[in-house]
Parts: sequence; structure tokens; C-alpha cells
Amino acid sequence: MKLTVIFNCGGNFADDQKFDAAVVLDVLRASSTITTALANGCSQLLPVAQVEQAVALAGEINTPLLGGERQAVKIPGFDLGNSPLEYSPAKVAGKKIILTTTNGTRAILQAAQGASVVMVGSLLNARTVAAKIAGYNSMLLLCAGTRGSFALEDALAAGWIIYELVAAREEGKYGHWREISMNDAGVAAYRLALYYRQRPLDALWNSSSGQRLAQLGMAADLTYCAQLNIIDLVPRYHQGMIVGDLL
Amino acid sequence: MKLTVIFNCGGNFADDQKFDAAVVLDVLRASSTITTALANGCSQLLPVAQVEQAVALAGEINTPLLGGERQAVKIPGFDLGNSPLEYSPAKVAGKKIILTTTNGTRAILQAAQGASVVMVGSLLNARTVAAKIAGYNSMLLLCAGTRGSFALEDALAAGWIIYELVAAREEGKYGHWREISMNDAGVAAYRLALYYRQRPLDALWNSSSGQRLAQLGMAADLTYCAQLNIIDLVPRYHQGMIVGDLL
Repeated sequence: MKLTVIFNCGGNFADDQKFDAAVVLDVLRASSTITTALANGCSQLLPVAQVEQAVALAGEINTPLLGGERQAVKIPGFDLGNSPLEYSPAKVAGKKIILTTTNGTRAILQAAQGASVVMVGSLLNARTVAAKIAGYNSMLLLCAGTRGSFALEDALAAGWIIYELVAAREEGKYGHWREISMNDAGVAAYRLALYYRQRPLDALWNSSSGQRLAQLGMAADLTYCAQLNIIDLVPRYHQGMIVGDLL
Repeated sequence: MKLTVIFNCGGNFADDQKFDAAVVLDVLRASSTITTALANGCSQLLPVAQVEQAVALAGEINTPLLGGERQAVKIPGFDLGNSPLEYSPAKVAGKKIILTTTNGTRAILQAAQGASVVMVGSLLNARTVAAKIAGYNSMLLLCAGTRGSFALEDALAAGWIIYELVAAREEGKYGHWREISMNDAGVAAYRLALYYRQRPLDALWNSSSGQRLAQLGMAADLTYCAQLNIIDLVPRYHQGMIVGDLL
């Protein structure tokens, strides 16, 4: 398997940069929120780039929920912000949710340009993501980053998925695998995961996104999003819609 | 001190991204070569972007040497390639060298757009670089990267300079310092340095640039460039010219 990690989205893929599949990582918080919403029974999420698009789309759907943030804060008039803790079964079970976030949505749309299969990964579902992608030849792990810059927590999630891949390979899971080859960013992400292995929450506290959320009174989101492998589901984006795939 | 690490050069700095000083890191191999050449008595280096510029400039200077590479290989007709091992005292002492390399030159020119003081750093002179930059308020550590992408060895050098800064601060060197604040890339680089601390050569072998050099028969360059703190000199770029500053 050829594994390419890109540390921040932005720009377009060159024609020679096409992948069998991609995983989008925006740990704080779009990836974690999407994964949690689907695990809690949300039937589908519709990611859109602009607030205006979200509102317009809401008019076309039967009783949707509107979710999202700008500058980490819930958009006025929306049902939900971008905290995974808001996406409880009581609120989201059976619902369609239109979601607009700053970095995550953009990364999903970019990934779709480079790969026909686009998944959403986080620390919450890293092991299940690793199992899902094990069969592909060329994989992109696209870190959303923060406003076009490297984000520590997204690199950690990329590294954690690689850690789970390597561990599963060593255990001989999923049949006989070939070598995993990684670009330099993949090696760095993997080393970061090894460094933070016993304490992923430290990485979230070390990150600028984590610091900002804590300052805004949302430190509970860090504690929630730092949990490893608590959800056995992989969100999959296809034609404007995200649904949950079980293993 | 506010420390900003950027993992790969390319693009321009925004107007609000100005720094007191910048350090350019291209471990394999421009930074290591420049540092070695000056330590071995080269009087100045003139970095230029294009081969044609190098040749034209050579016509204007008294007995210069031409150095540089394309695709890691010495440019035909040039006196020197881009291996630091070529830049021996016998060859470079007292000489002016015109240098053109793929990633390093570009990174130096980009850094000069964002900072009025531009230095060149590598593993070879990391501790001396740390001492030089200790007094600045806002510092940029610009990793050259490889063709616009993240390069493991450059991130390691950024992390190693941070490691030396932190260590000197804890020892109370250079007077009383304020806190060092870092962006996420700085935290990641520092963690990588801690991970590879006992074996920096491993990082160079793990990197795609290192792999390519080894395939081209230049593995000795990896061993040389992985040496920590063997040179007490910091190259400084100013108005088209690089000279060596002692501490």
C-alpha cells in the first residue's frame, strides 16, 4: 500500500496525484462530530461550504437539522454547533443534518477531487478506518489543518490510523498484506502517534485549535475527541452526502 | 519568543506574516553544504535560482567556483555539486562560490520576503543557531521541504533548534528568557526531535530525500549531514550574499 499524508488542505491535486481512496481528518471537530452523529443514529449529513447554501438546502429537505460553526461558535439560528457532544441520540436519531464548518467541509470537497472514495476519520474511529482502507493500493490521508496550516491533532489522527494499520499487519489481520510505503509526512505522523501514544489528550491540549476551544469554554470537546477507537463506524462521503459504513 | 515553523516553502507571506528573523532549513543538502563551505574558509556564497544566472554571474566575478545540483546531481560544467563533502578547505578556502540548488535557494529567497535577517540552519550548527536567535521576539523557522512538500529531515532540524533553545533556557543560558510560544508545526517538530534524539541519522534514512541520495550512491552525505552541533558558525544571507557569522 502506498500511503500519502498531506498535512493541510488547500490548493488542488495535480493530475498525477490521484488516489484509490481518501480519508479526511479534522479532529477538532468536524470529523469527530460527523462520526458521532452517525453513530448516534443520524441518517445522513450534507456538508456544504457556505452558510447561505446550508440555509437554502434546508428549505428543500423535510425537517432537517442545521449544524455548523464559524470561528468555532454555533452559527446564529442553527440547531446545532460543531461540538460532537451536542449530537446526542435524542437530538439526531433518524435526522438529516446539513453541516457547514470552516476547515472540515473544505477538506472533504478537496479530497473528492483526488479520490473517488472519500471517508472521514478521527481518533474516535481510527481502528475501524484502518480496517476499511487496508485493501486499497493508494491511499490519501488528508489532514484538514487550520486555515491552511498544519494542525497537530489532525497529524496525530493520520499517525494513529497508520499505527493501527501497522499493528494489524503485524498481527496478520485481514490476510497477507504487502509493505506499507509512506511519504515523509506519513513517517512524521506515525512518529507523532508513537510519541503521544499514552496520552493523545496532551496533543489536543498542545494544539492551537485545542487552546482556542478551551478558551471558549469547550474543553470538554478535547476530552471527548481524544478518545481512541470508541466508534466502529466510518463515515463515507458520496455525491454530496455522508452516510455511515459499518466494518 | 514567538516561534513559527513552516514545513514547506512555496507561496508568499501575507502582510501580517512578518518576522524579526528567519532560519532556512534544507538539511539534505543546501543548508549543510553552505554551513560546511563557510566553516572551511569559503569567503562568501552567492545563491541564485537558475543555472543560467549562475553562469552569467560567474563571468562578473574574479575566479569564482560554480556549485549546485539538479535532481541531486552536479550540474555539467560546474566545479562542485551539492555534497558538503566536496566543499573541503583545499577546494573552497578563500573562494567565492556561486550556488544553485533546487529547494534551498528558493527557500532562502522566500524567507527574505518575510524577514530582514535570514540565517541558514542545519543539524550541523543547530546549537549555534539557537544561540543566535535567542534574542529575537518573532522567529520563523522555514523548512525548505522537497518540491513544495514536507521533508522529514528539515522538520527534524527545526525541532532540534527548538530543543537547543529549550535546553539553553532551562540551563539559564543567555540571561533570563521569556516563554517560548510555538505554532502547531513547532510542537510537532520538537516532538520529532525528541523521538529521533538518540539517532538523527535514522530520520535521514527514513526520508525520501535520504533514500534518493542513497540510491544515487551518496549515502555518505546522510552520515555527514546527521551530525549534531559540529560547526559553531551561522551562515547569514544579506543582499544576495551568504557569509559566516561566529557566535
